Amino acid sequence: MTLKEYFSAQQSVIDAALDRFTPAESGHPATIHRAMRHSLFAGGKRIRPILCISAAAAVSDHAPAAIYAACSLEMIHTYSLIHDDLPALDNDDYRRGKATCHKVFGEAMAILAGDALFTLAIQTLTRIEDADPARVVALIRELSFASGTVDGMIGGQVTDIESERLPPTAELLDSIHRAKTGALLRASVRMGGIAAGGDAAQIEALSRYGEHIGLAFQIVDDILDVEESSQALGKTAGKDAAQGKITFPAVYGLEASREMAQEQCRLSHEALAPFGNGAQRLHEIADLIVQRKS
Amino acid sequence: MTLKEYFSAQQSVIDAALDRFTPAESGHPATIHRAMRHSLFAGGKRIRPILCISAAAAVSDHAPAAIYAACSLEMIHTYSLIHDDLPALDNDDYRRGKATCHKVFGEAMAILAGDALFTLAIQTLTRIEDADPARVVALIRELSFASGTVDGMIGGQVTDIESERLPPTAELLDSIHRAKTGALLRASVRMGGIAAGGDAAQIEALSRYGEHIGLAFQIVDDILDVEESSQALGKTAGKDAAQGKITFPAVYGLEASREMAQEQCRLSHEALAPFGNGAQRLHEIADLIVQRKS
Repeated sequence: MTLKEYFSAQQSVIDAALDRFTPAESGHPATIHRAMRHSLFAGGKRIRPILCISAAAAVSDHAPAAIYAACSLEMIHTYSLIHDDLPALDNDDYRRGKATCHKVFGEAMAILAGDALFTLAIQTLTRIEDADPARVVALIRELSFASGTVDGMIGGQVTDIESERLPPTAELLDSIHRAKTGALLRASVRMGGIAAGGDAAQIEALSRYGEHIGLAFQIVDDILDVEESSQALGKTAGKDAAQGKITFPAVYGLEASREMAQEQCRLSHEALAPFGNGAQRLHEIADLIVQRKS
Repeated sequence: MTLKEYFSAQQSVIDAALDRFTPAESGHPATIHRAMRHSLFAGGKRIRPILCISAAAAVSDHAPAAIYAACSLEMIHTYSLIHDDLPALDNDDYRRGKATCHKVFGEAMAILAGDALFTLAIQTLTRIEDADPARVVALIRELSFASGTVDGMIGGQVTDIESERLPPTAELLDSIHRAKTGALLRASVRMGGIAAGGDAAQIEALSRYGEHIGLAFQIVDDILDVEESSQALGKTAGKDAAQGKITFPAVYGLEASREMAQEQCRLSHEALAPFGNGAQRLHEIADLIVQRKS
């Protein structure tokens, strides 16, 4: 199976599970379920769930808890996008070429839909039945700390907002992205490893892999924002610069940023050494992250 | 110890624990921690945490996990108040006589502070060390379902918003309040019972108690909104009617509403029969809820 076919197969599995874990549109109160599903099924690439499942596969060929962890990650990611897009934050009307949640359902419902997807992510993890409860608690711990204010997603978002008034140093850039996007990507592979019953050394190796691809992912994101046209990205490109946001190309230049992404990719391959062939998909995903064009 | 002294003592314990579980104001990024603490320490009466601790005490005199559950409930409650007060929702400038989170820190930070308190609530439950992990998962399950869209807090909030366009029937009123405020009050006593190692029959008895005091609480809230002056409540009174919100006095009249609150109080006492003297504080709290003047 090619990586493209693997992605397509995993996306089907993940979408079916997300559908199963999310209340039906007809379920009372219907509006919020429609709003949640609008954003959850808006064409996301399911990078975090696929990382989670691929990390689980590197550890064990039997990990029934991984799909719960995978879905919880996509729910958290989607909640963060809904809130980030709000007028009070990034004020984005489009995301992946579709109208954002608040444009369709209004601000009140978008705020609540984000809250509800967060809640649903936690509910989903508590539904795991085929795993030691201590591992379920460990999964919830990973997800909640990766989403939090201290070195987590919300903390990165806050630093990002406040950075518009600060000098764009390499340290600031690093601290924003390790938290804002890096923490959840790192948690994706860690949670896959935990769901599969991995030992401490395996989780630690996955952590290092996750940190390197997380950084590579953000560097490439920043490069694409500069390079790509608005149409190809499905969002307003060049917006980072227009908003005075701190980016890798702004701090290091385009060429050095490209080299940094390559170096992070190389380090991510190195981190997977303990897994052998089981980590094939993780190797391929690292390459894909650096080579992607959108 | 009088109930007033008991409340005061519990409030001190709860406030100290909330302070311990919440990142310091100086912790990076400081702004969000200040915003979280602004609302978390804005003079809340700690009803939900005290219910949780009192329910735990009815089940066992040794329940070290109860304080974690108690704090998680107050964090969830506070997050919901911050988001409810936002301009896109209830647009309240004052809460408990203090400026609301978005008035002090801006909308973006208030949205993120709500998100962060939700995250912190879950983190706090994963910090429990002195309990069977299966019980920790059960606590997280209770909290996340009580906060959700299906018969939970967010669902009640959505129905409440949408009810402004619907005929004010008794069924609608009941469904809003069982979800919007009832679910979390019910979860407060259930979580106390679970934290203390209660059996199924004990949790079920606490559930019934929680449902009755939850309904009583909301009826009294609606009555107070009609009766009390703006000053005594610390928020804008009479606002429910002005916003066309459905309330118990609007559906049943003031006198019948008062009788309903008394009846719910009586039923809550009845539900506590299995506990004997251990439930003394729960009995007193039920009476207090119906007698309170603010």
